[in-house]
Amino acid sequence: MSRDTVSEIRLRVRYAETDQMGVAHHAQYLVWLEHARIEHLRRLGVSYRSLEEQGVRLAVAKTQVRYGAPARFDDELRIRCWVRESASRLLVFGYHIDRPLDGIAIATASVTLVPVDGRMRVIRLPRELLDLLVAVPDPFKLSL
Amino acid sequence: MSRDTVSEIRLRVRYAETDQMGVAHHAQYLVWLEHARIEHLRRLGVSYRSLEEQGVRLAVAKTQVRYGAPARFDDELRIRCWVRESASRLLVFGYHIDRPLDGIAIATASVTLVPVDGRMRVIRLPRELLDLLVAVPDPFKLSL
Amino acid sequence: MSRDTVSEIRLRVRYAETDQMGVAHHAQYLVWLEHARIEHLRRLGVSYRSLEEQGVRLAVAKTQVRYGAPARFDDELRIRCWVRESASRLLVFGYHIDRPLDGIAIATASVTLVPVDGRMRVIRLPRELLDLLVAVPDPFKLSL
Amino acid sequence: MSRDTVSEIRLRVRYAETDQMGVAHHAQYLVWLEHARIEHLRRLGVSYRSLEEQGVRLAVAKTQVRYGAPARFDDELRIRCWVRESASRLLVFGYHIDRPLDGIAIATASVTLVPVDGRMRVIRLPRELLDLLVAVPDPFKLSL
Repeated sequence: MSRDTVSEIRLRVRYAETDQMGVAHHAQYLVWLEHARIEHLRRLGVSYRSLEEQGVRLAVAKTQVRYGAPARFDDELRIRCWVRESASRLLVFGYHIDRPLDGIAIATASVTLVPVDGRMRVIRLPRELLDLLVAVPDPFKLSL
Repeated sequence: MSRDTVSEIRLRVRYAETDQMGVAHHAQYLVWLEHARIEHLRRLGVSYRSLEEQGVRLAVAKTQVRYGAPARFDDELRIRCWVRESASRLLVFGYHIDRPLDGIAIATASVTLVPVDGRMRVIRLPRELLDLLVAVPDPFKLSL
Repeated sequence: MSRDTVSEIRLRVRYAETDQMGVAHHAQYLVWLEHARIEHLRRLGVSYRSLEEQGVRLAVAKTQVRYGAPARFDDELRIRCWVRESASRLLVFGYHIDRPLDGIAIATASVTLVPVDGRMRVIRLPRELLDLLVAVPDPFKLSL
Repeated sequence: MSRDTVSEIRLRVRYAETDQMGVAHHAQYLVWLEHARIEHLRRLGVSYRSLEEQGVRLAVAKTQVRYGAPARFDDELRIRCWVRESASRLLVFGYHIDRPLDGIAIATASVTLVPVDGRMRVIRLPRELLDLLVAVPDPFKLSL
């Protein structure tokens, strides 16, 4: 697996992201995955902000998350992200979240996106973007 | 399908729930589903708050959401919720979200929960709770 | 105080709105205040959604919140909202939040808004809107 | 002003933090301020997580935020944080947010906290913590 194809970010669980169960709330994971996806694109040289300014948005069509050990306030998490499928009208990203401190698996996920214009109509991904988004076999098992 | 087994709530999309794509952010849906699940329990006579005070928490183990038409600010949404599977150590809820104004389908979802104690260890669901949570065949097709 | 000038909404604290202190997170209050403000406008016959579609946005310029007793998961809260000041380039709303069940005061707040266009440039409030937004003396003491 | 007394963090505005006005939602600022406050404590050698485990929580009693230029998706923001007032039963933090890229001022804020125990009863700050939290004159003008 090339380093170019699996990106990695780290983030720390914020207090506001916890709930009264004392763990990060499960909806928050989707926010982290989005953040990882945007950083993945940045490493490929793609600014999602510029992409939107050019009229291309990536609308979320499907999400699947499998939760492992809970993430807690102040935990530093590592999110790995890669492209699972890539076509002119569909992108699927895979994710693996763990806690580097002890190597505990926190979650795995898959998110499907569809390119749309400013009025949410499906469009084709620009060719140069599609060329960058090379799908790879899942480097981590996703128990979805 | 009995009215007892499929609950229904309505809510209005808040401004803070939108993102700059001009639609409700996809992570927000999990918050709505949680809200629908808690109201589903309330209609069965179960207060989730009391349940927690008795030491039983329902930890989210898996989420799957399929997004249809976007939900927009100020839209009134209807969320239907039912039990898909029910066992002493596993609960699966199904969801169907639409916009009553025009009948447009907004999303379908499935959320798997596991009963845990205050230290996040898996426990068995209290018998009287399990007896209330009768699984029914999906009343709506879930394209997950 | 006329009923027309002080609006009232009720909402229930969602699980996702709590944090690990076991209370509603303090940032969430601003989301509730926004919701109350939009409902206040609706009762005056103003749809904030339509307002935005006509090119008028109300950008938040200042917020002040004084927190009293904590709001807890599943609490039903009552938010009263009124106009404190109203001018062509400035609106100030006042808020009082309590818990009807026991009458406990949860928070008081003041939020200042400025009308802007789609590019965030300050504009004048449409005359017909300004006429509806009549300022009243604070019906509750705001300890800001 | 010593470097020890004014801390600085940087963060990037997440997509989920925007709203349909195309800017970061105003409630989100309180989440960022909390994050800055926790990092401020960390630099003083205080882990807020450990503090909570020892039974000391800092409950928010008052927030005041003045919003300047809007923060936008993907903007890198700098948050400076300092102690404005410090006493055994009250802490006030000051904040200044700007965008380093162009030096634009985004917001100033003040947040008042009260030490409480696990049941939200006011307690005294531990002496060794209080000794670390030395108040300084505001290094930036807060237009609150």
